Amino acid sequence: MTTARAYAATSATDPLVPTTIERRDVGPHDVLIDIAYAGVCHSDIHTVRGEWGPIAYPQVVGHEIVGTVAEVGAEVTSHKVGDRVGVGCMVNSCRECENCLAGMENYCLKGNTGTYASKDVDGTITQGGYSTSVVVNQDFVLRVPESIPYEAAAPLLCAGITTYSPLAHWNAGPGKKVAVVGMGGLGHMAVKIAAAMGAEVTVLSQTLNKQEDGLRFGAEHYYATSDAATFEKLANSFDLIINTVSAPVDLQSYLDLLRLDGTMVNVGAPPEALPVSVFGLMRNRRSFAASGIGSIGETQEMLDFCAEHGIAPEIELIDASEINTAYERVLKSDVRYRFVIDTATI
Amino acid sequence: MTTARAYAATSATDPLVPTTIERRDVGPHDVLIDIAYAGVCHSDIHTVRGEWGPIAYPQVVGHEIVGTVAEVGAEVTSHKVGDRVGVGCMVNSCRECENCLAGMENYCLKGNTGTYASKDVDGTITQGGYSTSVVVNQDFVLRVPESIPYEAAAPLLCAGITTYSPLAHWNAGPGKKVAVVGMGGLGHMAVKIAAAMGAEVTVLSQTLNKQEDGLRFGAEHYYATSDAATFEKLANSFDLIINTVSAPVDLQSYLDLLRLDGTMVNVGAPPEALPVSVFGLMRNRRSFAASGIGSIGETQEMLDFCAEHGIAPEIELIDASEINTAYERVLKSDVRYRFVIDTATI
Repeated sequence: MTTARAYAATSATDPLVPTTIERRDVGPHDVLIDIAYAGVCHSDIHTVRGEWGPIAYPQVVGHEIVGTVAEVGAEVTSHKVGDRVGVGCMVNSCRECENCLAGMENYCLKGNTGTYASKDVDGTITQGGYSTSVVVNQDFVLRVPESIPYEAAAPLLCAGITTYSPLAHWNAGPGKKVAVVGMGGLGHMAVKIAAAMGAEVTVLSQTLNKQEDGLRFGAEHYYATSDAATFEKLANSFDLIINTVSAPVDLQSYLDLLRLDGTMVNVGAPPEALPVSVFGLMRNRRSFAASGIGSIGETQEMLDFCAEHGIAPEIELIDASEINTAYERVLKSDVRYRFVIDTATI
Repeated sequence: MTTARAYAATSATDPLVPTTIERRDVGPHDVLIDIAYAGVCHSDIHTVRGEWGPIAYPQVVGHEIVGTVAEVGAEVTSHKVGDRVGVGCMVNSCRECENCLAGMENYCLKGNTGTYASKDVDGTITQGGYSTSVVVNQDFVLRVPESIPYEAAAPLLCAGITTYSPLAHWNAGPGKKVAVVGMGGLGHMAVKIAAAMGAEVTVLSQTLNKQEDGLRFGAEHYYATSDAATFEKLANSFDLIINTVSAPVDLQSYLDLLRLDGTMVNVGAPPEALPVSVFGLMRNRRSFAASGIGSIGETQEMLDFCAEHGIAPEIELIDASEINTAYERVLKSDVRYRFVIDTATI
């Protein structure tokens, strides 16, 4: 066992506090990673506060992890000590179901093993990346190209892949008009990636506050959704809409922006069911879909794509002691565009 | 002008009655068709009863029309006197919008001109196929292969194309598992067409009453949706679900039957918005879509496909005087599987 320093939630309401946790012994297929940086995802906050269901405490969260390989098991072939690696939202899956066998372990029919607050193969509850080290099965460890700035790489493991996967799957590229709804942690990555893929990108944000940033990230157009004229002007325009907003939106207003055979994909999931007008879908043969993170194969492809195109998240680097104030700022959308914890400060 | 005999609705509540109507002079691009048979679609009933909004009376409905060309305009090149032809749900479109230019006039952004109860280019209200003749622009007239039984060809023009189009668009074929929800006029055609395309077809019907028919039409499996075990057994099974039921269904139960990247397509449209769980779509990266009839190009392709595969609707041929009782039977789903009016009896 390895003792790691970490920041943990001890209840749904108390602030996160420094602690130590035990990481399992490095098994034959495992990799021990010295964590360098961990991104702060809105999901972390939902989880520790019990908003996605009750959890056991203490709980360490964080599923945007980059670090250096410190030790490998006897059977590990794909990583070696000293490699720069990453871990995202999952650390295992059943490996037997139709989806796992198709290399889409993020859609494991038995549910993949989440990087935190999930039951691990040994029956323990997984503990996440706000920590100095982690032990992960080699198949769920990604290679992080050295050309991506080390501290900025972390958010790619969730915000990056969650937007890259639907953009790639629904063929964002030259000649395609893509709208990104919301320009937070996920949205700003969606803009950068879609633009790098060659699509014509439009940001649909509540206000024009971040317009300058959006255009700098590669968007060609930027509209405020608080202005009703936006929806009239852009009717029947887009091939693909990536909705990064988790809160319920007036779905029909957005679906009406899709041109023939267009698809709107939610990457955020409000707990409430959203009303969909079938007549609205029937106009232009529209589709409404949702996408959850991405497979390990797609995640590696995304990291290589970002390295090749010089894409990295915009981050605010923080010390571990700032986590609780960072959470409050995330809830106020007051972050440009992702907090990343320097785990040396844990 | 040509005088035609017809059956018309005179109010939302009175039975249809025999009458005469005037058809416009045959313009240079027009085709005069002596109608032989007209199918009875549930849409006809919704329309005459004002259930889809108020209409002007008297109104002749019917948009599943087959007949013989009696006269052509000077500029007509694609049809000649004596040809067996068909007319479906639309008789014109704007021809200028993005979708029309793409050959998808069924999705005309200005709204296509419906075969009945729609404003025609000359400002009059279109009158449908429960009639002895009709004048239609040549571009909206289909060639009906002689190998399709004449009286059975009519329902292909709505029920056939409405199911063929999504089956073709979402690639029903060998190796694909397709479910058809509801086995009425549209559903039974969906089964025959999907089976002919080479897909593995499952019928999901309220009861097992039509099971024998379903298997005869080409389905390999038949389940009752009134049995909750059906939904457990078939979870994560289908690549494509064609929902032919216009009444609202418990959408999530059906979406849960889709495997990875599966799509559920509504071809019936309930007026109410349906609640969709984004978490439910996110499992297996599912899509919910809707499809409306088909383009003229697709309709011709469907007619040729049906001729090639020996597919025709199952019909009950009726005299015009039986229309009102036929309506009552349609509302009770008491028809195997489409009423067709012999227009010689009008």
